[in-house]
Amino acid sequence: MNDTAIDYARYDHIRPILWTGEVLELLDQRKLPFLVEHVHCRDSDEVAHAIHALAVRGAPAIGIAAAWGVVLAARAVEAADGEDAARKLEPALQRLNAARPTAVNLAWALARMRRALEGAGADWRAVLEREAQAISDEDLAANRHMGALGAGLITPGSGVLTHCNTGSLATAGFGTALGVIRAGMAQGRIGRVFAGETRPWLQGARLTVWELQQDGIDATLIADSAASHLMKTGAVQWVVVGADRICANGDTANKIGTYQLAIAARHHGVKFMVVAPSSTMDMDTADGAQIEIEQRDPGELFGIGGTRTVAEGIAAWNPVFDVTPGTLIDAIVTERGVIESPTLEKMRAAFG
Amino acid sequence: MNDTAIDYARYDHIRPILWTGEVLELLDQRKLPFLVEHVHCRDSDEVAHAIHALAVRGAPAIGIAAAWGVVLAARAVEAADGEDAARKLEPALQRLNAARPTAVNLAWALARMRRALEGAGADWRAVLEREAQAISDEDLAANRHMGALGAGLITPGSGVLTHCNTGSLATAGFGTALGVIRAGMAQGRIGRVFAGETRPWLQGARLTVWELQQDGIDATLIADSAASHLMKTGAVQWVVVGADRICANGDTANKIGTYQLAIAARHHGVKFMVVAPSSTMDMDTADGAQIEIEQRDPGELFGIGGTRTVAEGIAAWNPVFDVTPGTLIDAIVTERGVIESPTLEKMRAAFG
Repeated sequence: MNDTAIDYARYDHIRPILWTGEVLELLDQRKLPFLVEHVHCRDSDEVAHAIHALAVRGAPAIGIAAAWGVVLAARAVEAADGEDAARKLEPALQRLNAARPTAVNLAWALARMRRALEGAGADWRAVLEREAQAISDEDLAANRHMGALGAGLITPGSGVLTHCNTGSLATAGFGTALGVIRAGMAQGRIGRVFAGETRPWLQGARLTVWELQQDGIDATLIADSAASHLMKTGAVQWVVVGADRICANGDTANKIGTYQLAIAARHHGVKFMVVAPSSTMDMDTADGAQIEIEQRDPGELFGIGGTRTVAEGIAAWNPVFDVTPGTLIDAIVTERGVIESPTLEKMRAAFG
Repeated sequence: MNDTAIDYARYDHIRPILWTGEVLELLDQRKLPFLVEHVHCRDSDEVAHAIHALAVRGAPAIGIAAAWGVVLAARAVEAADGEDAARKLEPALQRLNAARPTAVNLAWALARMRRALEGAGADWRAVLEREAQAISDEDLAANRHMGALGAGLITPGSGVLTHCNTGSLATAGFGTALGVIRAGMAQGRIGRVFAGETRPWLQGARLTVWELQQDGIDATLIADSAASHLMKTGAVQWVVVGADRICANGDTANKIGTYQLAIAARHHGVKFMVVAPSSTMDMDTADGAQIEIEQRDPGELFGIGGTRTVAEGIAAWNPVFDVTPGTLIDAIVTERGVIESPTLEKMRAAFG
């Protein structure tokens, strides 16, 4: 049971982010699973809008899309070298950075692109393009490695529950938490997969079960509210989720509902695993209380698709992330290794 | 702060169950909040179907509708006296009883109707009609009394979170948990109300916030998954819910998601209140492990209204109730009084 046992090519059919050399094509995740359409971005503001409007989503995918957004921004700028380009590109980078507040991978990818420009000469455009490709390639490699690491923690025959979508759609490919599930299924460690539908945006219902279906993996959809009852039946031994930002003490921001799953998991003795590349680590943020939680349009709770379900004039509260304290997490899996029962000391030793 | 401080007439405008003397008119809860339409039942099988298909829902309302169903069944039967009628009505009662399995109020109401026939003479039809009316009238009175009792537990200025719909729509009027919220708002004890949308059927989103809006009470809708994050912010001091069946040890079956809220409430030091008439007590069932949990059509998770959101060929698990252990409940409020931190001994002392 190791990396080489897995036929990764099998999982390569979904690519949410495609750079053609001219245009950034984003698989429009608002329209899945019924319409497979792409948003074509020709400048960085179109990328920022696609991120803000959730055409592309998932913390690693947002970072990768933003990196390509910088490559597009470079088209509109004349500059002698990297330093000059960095100054002229900064407004576009700021607009990309503002597209969504919670996932740290966005700021991380933009910081990498800025760093790449340091010392770059007249070929700074090519430098940016190579850096964006590297961010994407490294993400895919990280996911494959994390899949093997995370699956290794799971006792054969286990059931797992996941939340939101953390698959190929949310990354450069293979996925974070869904990568662990793919690896665990391939290795026979995972017997059964459950996916919460993930209100309000239904990433689990619309994306995760569809994405797994493409691989021939049967996942069983549940209402988010049914998770505790499911745990009580003994059907799941692990909850496996992704992350949008992990603080220095292990506190983890992720899709709304993650925190509730962590509380329920601890109550039932179910293990709780967070799977995220090291780009998700935010060692400058001491703990979860410092994280800005994105509030989205209350209208996301007023219906689904074209069907309105709530009377007019109703107020709603729609935080789309929450923070799971590190003390409720049994394992954080990154491409650099596994941190069990994360603490500030363990996190510092691994991520500085 | 007591019963008399509340203007109950203000809450009388929604009546889900109307007996015209000839026809049972059920406010069709599948169509709310946008269409106010009634299902007209002219025989007991139409009532059984309306219960099964959720045109009428809510444990107390199901019991009351079933009682009127027996009155309708009586139209189709010739019998000399109550004993004769009971024998001839039994098949219809069995069909009513089978309409939904989890709520005990259904069986309880049918048992009361059977008992009413014992010793009844030639006027057995009038006896049945009086008994059905009594079941309805007693439910309304119980709700008003429970509202005052439950509100009395709440420290002024509290925020509350409720789940599913437990209001006038689910009862003869005023509501159980929603009765406590109405009384608490009227008395100034409750400052803010939050309602979980309650997937998959969205009773909270479609019914509860609408019903409270009719009273001029602003409730804030949240995704079910946001409850723990809400509790962490300190915005709620009580979770207040209804019940479909309460066992001898206080274990409580209620809408899926209730158990998860109870775990989260305990984790945050938020109090957890169950509000239900004594007809919900099932002292013959020792604990929650004995309760049959109704599984409904997985299709309820595949979309909302006319909008399908999930790909074809996906499996779903759709238990629509769960069991909250009595140990996670701070108070069970019935019309007979309040049981704090329920145990078998306390339940036996109150309900025999």
